[in-house]
Amino acid sequence: MSLSSQSSADELLKAQQKLISEYDRLKSCNLSLDMSRGKPAAAQLDLSNGILTLQLDSYINCEGNDVRNYGILTGIKECRHLFAELLGIKEDNIIIGGNSSLNLIYDSIARYFMFGKLGSTPWSKLDKVKVLCPVPGYDRHFAICEEFGFEMINIPMDNNGPDMDMVEKLVKEDDSIKIMLCVPLYSNPNGVCYSDEVVERLAKMETAAEDFTIIWDNAYGIHHVYSETKLANIFELAAKYGNEDRILYFFSTSKITFPGSGVALIASGDKAIAEIKRRFGIMTIGYNKINQIRTYSFFKTPGGMMEHMKKLGAMLREKFDVVLNKLDEEFDDNDLLTWTKPGGGYFISVDTLPGCAKETVRLAKECGLILTEAGATYPYKKDPNDSNIRIAPSYPTVEELKKAIEVFCICVKLAAVNKLLKEK
Amino acid sequence: MSLSSQSSADELLKAQQKLISEYDRLKSCNLSLDMSRGKPAAAQLDLSNGILTLQLDSYINCEGNDVRNYGILTGIKECRHLFAELLGIKEDNIIIGGNSSLNLIYDSIARYFMFGKLGSTPWSKLDKVKVLCPVPGYDRHFAICEEFGFEMINIPMDNNGPDMDMVEKLVKEDDSIKIMLCVPLYSNPNGVCYSDEVVERLAKMETAAEDFTIIWDNAYGIHHVYSETKLANIFELAAKYGNEDRILYFFSTSKITFPGSGVALIASGDKAIAEIKRRFGIMTIGYNKINQIRTYSFFKTPGGMMEHMKKLGAMLREKFDVVLNKLDEEFDDNDLLTWTKPGGGYFISVDTLPGCAKETVRLAKECGLILTEAGATYPYKKDPNDSNIRIAPSYPTVEELKKAIEVFCICVKLAAVNKLLKEK
Repeated sequence: MSLSSQSSADELLKAQQKLISEYDRLKSCNLSLDMSRGKPAAAQLDLSNGILTLQLDSYINCEGNDVRNYGILTGIKECRHLFAELLGIKEDNIIIGGNSSLNLIYDSIARYFMFGKLGSTPWSKLDKVKVLCPVPGYDRHFAICEEFGFEMINIPMDNNGPDMDMVEKLVKEDDSIKIMLCVPLYSNPNGVCYSDEVVERLAKMETAAEDFTIIWDNAYGIHHVYSETKLANIFELAAKYGNEDRILYFFSTSKITFPGSGVALIASGDKAIAEIKRRFGIMTIGYNKINQIRTYSFFKTPGGMMEHMKKLGAMLREKFDVVLNKLDEEFDDNDLLTWTKPGGGYFISVDTLPGCAKETVRLAKECGLILTEAGATYPYKKDPNDSNIRIAPSYPTVEELKKAIEVFCICVKLAAVNKLLKEK
Repeated sequence: MSLSSQSSADELLKAQQKLISEYDRLKSCNLSLDMSRGKPAAAQLDLSNGILTLQLDSYINCEGNDVRNYGILTGIKECRHLFAELLGIKEDNIIIGGNSSLNLIYDSIARYFMFGKLGSTPWSKLDKVKVLCPVPGYDRHFAICEEFGFEMINIPMDNNGPDMDMVEKLVKEDDSIKIMLCVPLYSNPNGVCYSDEVVERLAKMETAAEDFTIIWDNAYGIHHVYSETKLANIFELAAKYGNEDRILYFFSTSKITFPGSGVALIASGDKAIAEIKRRFGIMTIGYNKINQIRTYSFFKTPGGMMEHMKKLGAMLREKFDVVLNKLDEEFDDNDLLTWTKPGGGYFISVDTLPGCAKETVRLAKECGLILTEAGATYPYKKDPNDSNIRIAPSYPTVEELKKAIEVFCICVKLAAVNKLLKEK
């Protein structure tokens, strides 16, 4: 019979002995493995080298502007057009920013913090600003909110997205709730895709705060691995209710071409984007347009991007398979670990027995395997159950990954057995 | 005898008639000329095309990191090293940021506004924040300060830089003065180079505000045209007095390679830069390192950059000559216009008779010549004398420039004569 939380003390002790010996063997191998961050592997990056080697026929863009010179604050037209078509957003409502959607998110929050949104009181002048955080979520989002001193509220998620009954109730009653953080497709880390109903409810809901803002971080918008889930168009839905300015939409090519050297965009409703353009005009003269024209020239059309993403998806699928197959093998018949199979994105989110995540990560580290810090997927790094761990399978090679997941499974079991024995 | 402010009404009337007829002739040419912004000409940009066409041997930098991937928040070592050598700043005190030093300046001010500097009260929580602005100065600096609601104080300049007696007195007495804006070499627009004594006094002076910050925007640090003026090293001087953290040093390749597609840096003392690195770590994962390695690979050494700047300087010199020779020809023997001959940088700053700048710019515009808005070189766009105009000769071709400066001279004279006649 398989090991589980129902195993007897005797079974657990036997298992513990065996696990310790396996763990010690692995430890003696002096491994150096890393499944901590969502970094693409070199082979994925190679798929985009054409951007670096392509020779531009001309530095003059479709509107007759020299992309090497100053100007065009909102990004070159062909690049805005490409993303407009890809994402179903009006071209004029898109600004192509720098290299980082995270930076655009930070700046957006900073602007409302300093100056308010469309005439509202600057958030820095309020006693309290609250943020709704679907959990588990993206650690860098939470770090930004912590930097600004916002109070983060955990919102549970199921397979359809955040608990909308809870969200609707909170935003209707509490005007200090100014932000909701969303990674609506293949969410980081648990791969949840917001259902059409959830997206419509977010677009429609009544909010006490007029300047309530949804950070719609569509970081994995075309990052299909197993499925081709289609996300409802939140701008179309919001338009029905006159709430387009509520949405700040972010997207980037960081995990399409090169992290740090791609292009990122922000989009919003007419009024909000006009305000952002005005404030951008004070902050900068313009972004790197040569990178914009290179990105455009490499892809040309949304179809070109989707073809590219198929190749990337195949590479990720091979790695996701390694992890998911091993998890199936080790935990399908027991309750020591649960997980969701993501349709795309970059991560696999797992839950250990309550109280075992930190210990699992510690054991793995001692054994030469770096995992994302336990708790990182929750605001303030506090996972109330100490159970969630984010696995990032993209960066290691398949061989490394096989070894890494082997180590991981031993650590999960050892942490679980140790805990169960302590409770006996 | 030449026209001047001492001419008789009769002489002025005669001159006016002649000027109007010349003006009308030029107006009928339907010119479209632009001397408004410091934009490099296409021929200048062509000198850097090698950055765009160069093929990198490897994407691995000198420290073994793949520049195509995430990481290296402060910029690749070889690029920091290049600028460290060029500018005489310690490598570890430099962060290579994105594409825009203006953006780095804005962000730096925003950070102190939101969070304070090294433990000080956030500037957003103060009743008043004041900024010392050497005038005439850079309009985009002033626009940032206006956006934040700061009170700007004009500081007169002479050939050695800002009036240091005034600066020292103000900063010693008033702890609400938090910022001083400096373009210390070939300043925008009047080409002033801060003398060694001025730099040392800035580094040494006592300030009431502990978080007093000098924005050291060395935008034209190697942009020699006629002279090769050497700017004193403010960090070395500040070190003598323990004031390195007072300096935020900015530099970029916007006017060396490509505006908007170059690299920019921020540098400061140990404590201030450590704080900035920590806050950058929340704001972004990192900047475009491919652009950094391209920039490095194109120049390799400070010598490589200086060679390049010689070529750029020669191109600018030809254009500066056109403007300066014409000004000499038209105004050397009279008092209708005064100007300084800059040793480098991008601009020529002129002063009309008091009350004539706006009218000169208006006349030029009606005649098809766009000049920088009169007043733009002063905080709140208020030139107390209405006399300063910034001429940007870089963008037009030599032929266009000859025509533009001809129009300009007529407009200066016509505005002056009209004004003098009104006063008779």
